[in-house]
Amino acid sequence: MPLLEDIGGPDDLKRLTGSELDELAEEIRQFLIHAVARTGGHLGPNLGVVELTIALHRVFDSPADRVLWDTGHQAYVHKLLTGRQDFSKLKGKGGLSGYPSRAESEHDVIENSHASTVLGWADGLAKANQVRGRPHHVAAVIGDGALTGGMAWEALNNIAAAKDRPLVIVVNDNERSYAPTIGGLANHLATLRTTDEYERVLAWGKGVLQQTPVVGKPLYESLHGAKKGFKDAVAPQGMFEDLGLKYVGPIDGHDIGAVESALQRAKRFGGPVIVHCRTQKGRGYEPALADEADHFHTVGRIDPLTAEPVAPAAGPSWTSVFRDEMVRIGAEREDVVAVTAAMLEPVGLGPFAAAYPDRIFDVGIAEQHATVSAAGMATGGLHPVVAVYATFLGRAFDQLLMDVALHRCGVTFVLDRAGITGPDGASHHGMWDMSVLQAVPGLRIAAPRDAEQLRAELREALDVDDAPTVVRFPKETVAEPLPAVRRVGGLDVLREHPEPATAGPDGAGGAERPARDVLLVAVGVMAPVCLEAAELLAGRGIDCTVVDPRWVKPVDEALPPLAAQHRAVAVVEDNCRAGGVGSAVDQALRDAGVDRPLCGIGLPPEFLAHGKRAELLADVGLTPAEIAGRIAATVLRARGEPGAAAGGEGRAGGAGVGAASEETAG
Amino acid sequence: MPLLEDIGGPDDLKRLTGSELDELAEEIRQFLIHAVARTGGHLGPNLGVVELTIALHRVFDSPADRVLWDTGHQAYVHKLLTGRQDFSKLKGKGGLSGYPSRAESEHDVIENSHASTVLGWADGLAKANQVRGRPHHVAAVIGDGALTGGMAWEALNNIAAAKDRPLVIVVNDNERSYAPTIGGLANHLATLRTTDEYERVLAWGKGVLQQTPVVGKPLYESLHGAKKGFKDAVAPQGMFEDLGLKYVGPIDGHDIGAVESALQRAKRFGGPVIVHCRTQKGRGYEPALADEADHFHTVGRIDPLTAEPVAPAAGPSWTSVFRDEMVRIGAEREDVVAVTAAMLEPVGLGPFAAAYPDRIFDVGIAEQHATVSAAGMATGGLHPVVAVYATFLGRAFDQLLMDVALHRCGVTFVLDRAGITGPDGASHHGMWDMSVLQAVPGLRIAAPRDAEQLRAELREALDVDDAPTVVRFPKETVAEPLPAVRRVGGLDVLREHPEPATAGPDGAGGAERPARDVLLVAVGVMAPVCLEAAELLAGRGIDCTVVDPRWVKPVDEALPPLAAQHRAVAVVEDNCRAGGVGSAVDQALRDAGVDRPLCGIGLPPEFLAHGKRAELLADVGLTPAEIAGRIAATVLRARGEPGAAAGGEGRAGGAGVGAASEETAG
Repeated sequence: MPLLEDIGGPDDLKRLTGSELDELAEEIRQFLIHAVARTGGHLGPNLGVVELTIALHRVFDSPADRVLWDTGHQAYVHKLLTGRQDFSKLKGKGGLSGYPSRAESEHDVIENSHASTVLGWADGLAKANQVRGRPHHVAAVIGDGALTGGMAWEALNNIAAAKDRPLVIVVNDNERSYAPTIGGLANHLATLRTTDEYERVLAWGKGVLQQTPVVGKPLYESLHGAKKGFKDAVAPQGMFEDLGLKYVGPIDGHDIGAVESALQRAKRFGGPVIVHCRTQKGRGYEPALADEADHFHTVGRIDPLTAEPVAPAAGPSWTSVFRDEMVRIGAEREDVVAVTAAMLEPVGLGPFAAAYPDRIFDVGIAEQHATVSAAGMATGGLHPVVAVYATFLGRAFDQLLMDVALHRCGVTFVLDRAGITGPDGASHHGMWDMSVLQAVPGLRIAAPRDAEQLRAELREALDVDDAPTVVRFPKETVAEPLPAVRRVGGLDVLREHPEPATAGPDGAGGAERPARDVLLVAVGVMAPVCLEAAELLAGRGIDCTVVDPRWVKPVDEALPPLAAQHRAVAVVEDNCRAGGVGSAVDQALRDAGVDRPLCGIGLPPEFLAHGKRAELLADVGLTPAEIAGRIAATVLRARGEPGAAAGGEGRAGGAGVGAASEETAG
Repeated sequence: MPLLEDIGGPDDLKRLTGSELDELAEEIRQFLIHAVARTGGHLGPNLGVVELTIALHRVFDSPADRVLWDTGHQAYVHKLLTGRQDFSKLKGKGGLSGYPSRAESEHDVIENSHASTVLGWADGLAKANQVRGRPHHVAAVIGDGALTGGMAWEALNNIAAAKDRPLVIVVNDNERSYAPTIGGLANHLATLRTTDEYERVLAWGKGVLQQTPVVGKPLYESLHGAKKGFKDAVAPQGMFEDLGLKYVGPIDGHDIGAVESALQRAKRFGGPVIVHCRTQKGRGYEPALADEADHFHTVGRIDPLTAEPVAPAAGPSWTSVFRDEMVRIGAEREDVVAVTAAMLEPVGLGPFAAAYPDRIFDVGIAEQHATVSAAGMATGGLHPVVAVYATFLGRAFDQLLMDVALHRCGVTFVLDRAGITGPDGASHHGMWDMSVLQAVPGLRIAAPRDAEQLRAELREALDVDDAPTVVRFPKETVAEPLPAVRRVGGLDVLREHPEPATAGPDGAGGAERPARDVLLVAVGVMAPVCLEAAELLAGRGIDCTVVDPRWVKPVDEALPPLAAQHRAVAVVEDNCRAGGVGSAVDQALRDAGVDRPLCGIGLPPEFLAHGKRAELLADVGLTPAEIAGRIAATVLRARGEPGAAAGGEGRAGGAGVGAASEETAG
């Protein structure tokens, strides 16, 4: 790859000739196919923006000018052109992030992989340039799919209002986000894509009209005087122009010269301009183009030639268990409808949609609308299941609280990718939901431990018709079945001492002290990890009862009395420790007057980087050995045994504890 | 009011003649002016929708058809026409809600006073009608201001996509929300308002064109064949039509006959239609029309003739302290900019805007954009102050977490109306922020106790340039100055025993037990209440140290050692108890190995109704007497004294405690 190797930064692009640029584009495409095949990653989106990225970096002077990427998964080419060509550990621990990363490069700005934010960032950066009197430019790339998000609208409305603030918005229009983009906007963009037809009609009509005198002057001029101009009126550039944004397009996004020329014009204009580029997702890679579902939006490791997966999944995923159960439920209950925010297949609703096409609603990248329209549907007598990635529910917090919960609507939220997700990093980890949702009155949260519980808890959720319910589960392969020993209240006891609790297992202590050492509350997917930890504790002579609370909110009434039978309590969750399930259990125990040392183990209140899920869990101490070690310290202190310093269980392990240490990952 | 008195429900409207309807409108207007003058309330918006509401209830058959109100403060006329004419206790305890309320009437649907939700609700209800095969209609009224919110866009995009789902959207265009509506959309609506000019051009142009044969057929038809039709192209109905929504308008919203006729047409159409009504906020009431700031958007008690306030404020408000300090800060720091979401005056940014017009950004009703654009501005070297009501910050949770906090942006959020707000009820209480924000890494929260602290903590917040900061304060008059005795770490000690803590104040107990009874952590505005409670406790022989933590997140490192000098700890906050400051303190104590009974007092995890702030605080037990009673129970139990049952402090008082009792207010 002789040309690519010589690109150390954007300046190196500027000395290449037109044919060299085409050659470079081909090198980049081959690089991407082979590099991403080895690691997995967002292949289709990056193949679609090769020429666009080259043109952007030739026209704008990053980092003084800012080149911004919405969602960020299409920034691989940008990385290659800004000095980052080692893709060997892409999305792996210590390797390049799958998104822009300020730690990697001064050319990066937005690390957040949530969609539709770029126009807001661009507006803010342009405002800062204006206030500071800096002459720099801002260019923002946003997909047509991301334009369906409300944030994009709010930003467009504001950007359009400032005619003197330069800002170039590139609409990267490939007619899809994951799946084809839907809604009125998509139809409008489709109309825009046929503009050349209108240009032809226009040219022809203009000639005729200019020769048609009316009331003393040509009809064309008369109509032109009607404020908007005839061209604007006939050419269907309506929406953007009506908002007050200049529109250039549509441009062939794979023609570097055409894109450069359009960007130059837009840059010179001095105000907000939309440059509408048509691109093809998966461009230049036959298997991606042939994949109608999502044009290889994201792939695991594949053979670059055959595009077949190198390492197929080890077993059924949590998503697939939900997917199949929803099809069964759909057959049984006509009132159950499903809602997705532009992620029909990733959240497993494809088969439901195929089976019940009248009961599936894809709202676009619009979690707010998914949630508020679900409140409307519930009020209209349906039971909606809103399936989203856990991390994206933050977009709809106000709607969940004020529309669904305040109105006591029976809406079930299914949160896929809850907890540590892994390679997609800080903004994809679903580690906030069980904290943030604690505040929502009436809301109930289930965290299933295995496939059977996922199916059961989903059905229990669907039986609640006067409050929101949440079922959350992680990415990856579903856990092995974990049968319960017995049920106490709503809790599943997974492990307990075979004999009734009448005396301490170590024979020490008086009759009044609790009979067992520790009650371990294992939240959802932490159950198998906790059972292993219990085994380790048993080896150290510590008697451990393990329960799966099944529903973590509200705290089950059976929990405080059960806790009272133990010297100490531990809660383990793959959720932010601050305000999480541990806190809720703590409060329930305090309220019930059960004063016991409590060891709360969860994710630290920090943003966690990318890596493999198992690696990250180990980094934060969510392993059987570390969990056992910290619980042991708590128990020893509760027993009053030597070697157990006060506070030892709270500080040990570093990560995962310490509410007062609030540090942000770099 | 002979006509109004006879209106028991919408059906009674349908037998009135045109002149009787005009008379009824006049009666309603007089009723509103006099009723709202007595209680306070949203006067301007309701005066603007008298005729529109009458027409809606004549055309649609509520409650089978659904008539929906965005934001809901303009539903007074709707209440009057659906059997609710006792406005004597409007917004007061036990009186009519200031918003729709399902408990009041089957004609009400959306209780949430957060803007821009109605189109999402309407889409959901229309979908439910379709799935259930019901022939009913849905009509949604939304202001032009609320259309600037992203939710409205998400909904429009979805509504437009379903051509066969009937839905009438009434745009109540009074050119303002609180203040004049801003942005590209506002400009577009302004263009639409001049449509009659275009209609004239059109009619005249069409006549000419139909007589101009081109290539064998009239030019009009040729152009018409260009998909959009000539009328659509020339009349600047661009945006809505481009999305695929039929547009009717503009209609004089004060002409009942014209509105009825437009609504009938829209209802018959069978798909989504926008009816654009022009109305005048404050219509028919001279003082409201003369008030350029907000046309009496909301008023306190006033003299209906002079419109002068009956009971002026007792002293400076929290808002005014912030307002004045911002002007001073603006003079000192050129990098400080301010952001408001369509509430420049209510949040006190008017004088800042007047003094520094280049550094104020009103983004419309768009908290998401306020937040994400602030992240951009901070990245560009500014320090934005985003001033919003606490309850509205929920709209921007994802942006605060993923854009501001993840990117370590120095943005200060000033949350007005935090805690119990009072007459605006469940969706206006700002009682969630200190819970939900606990999960945000790096974020710091200050809760000032008086004006001096507000000024100081605001400046401290503005000195943090690598993390989000929050300063929260309530509605109403600022508290009297409360000087600190001394500062320990970051804590202000407001009250303590005059002698050093060497032995228990009651002389009992051994040397090893803590010297003092209870450490009372008083959050922000709870400080004076807690000082009164401490006085009561002292009368009962209980020694109480009162501290104001100033910054409640993170928990100050000085707090656990100070707590260790006391038998028990109490935390009092006007925030949802679940996951709030009490939980955070609890976790910090656990982590530090300070095992003490903790009495967490806050707002119950319920939606609280409307009433006066003091009444509501009393209802939930946030009074000196109740706080003292509950703390006493905890202390007595910690002392091991008789009469203190285990758990007594947790359950006593009912409201305000009990994480396991999750009930939603009716």
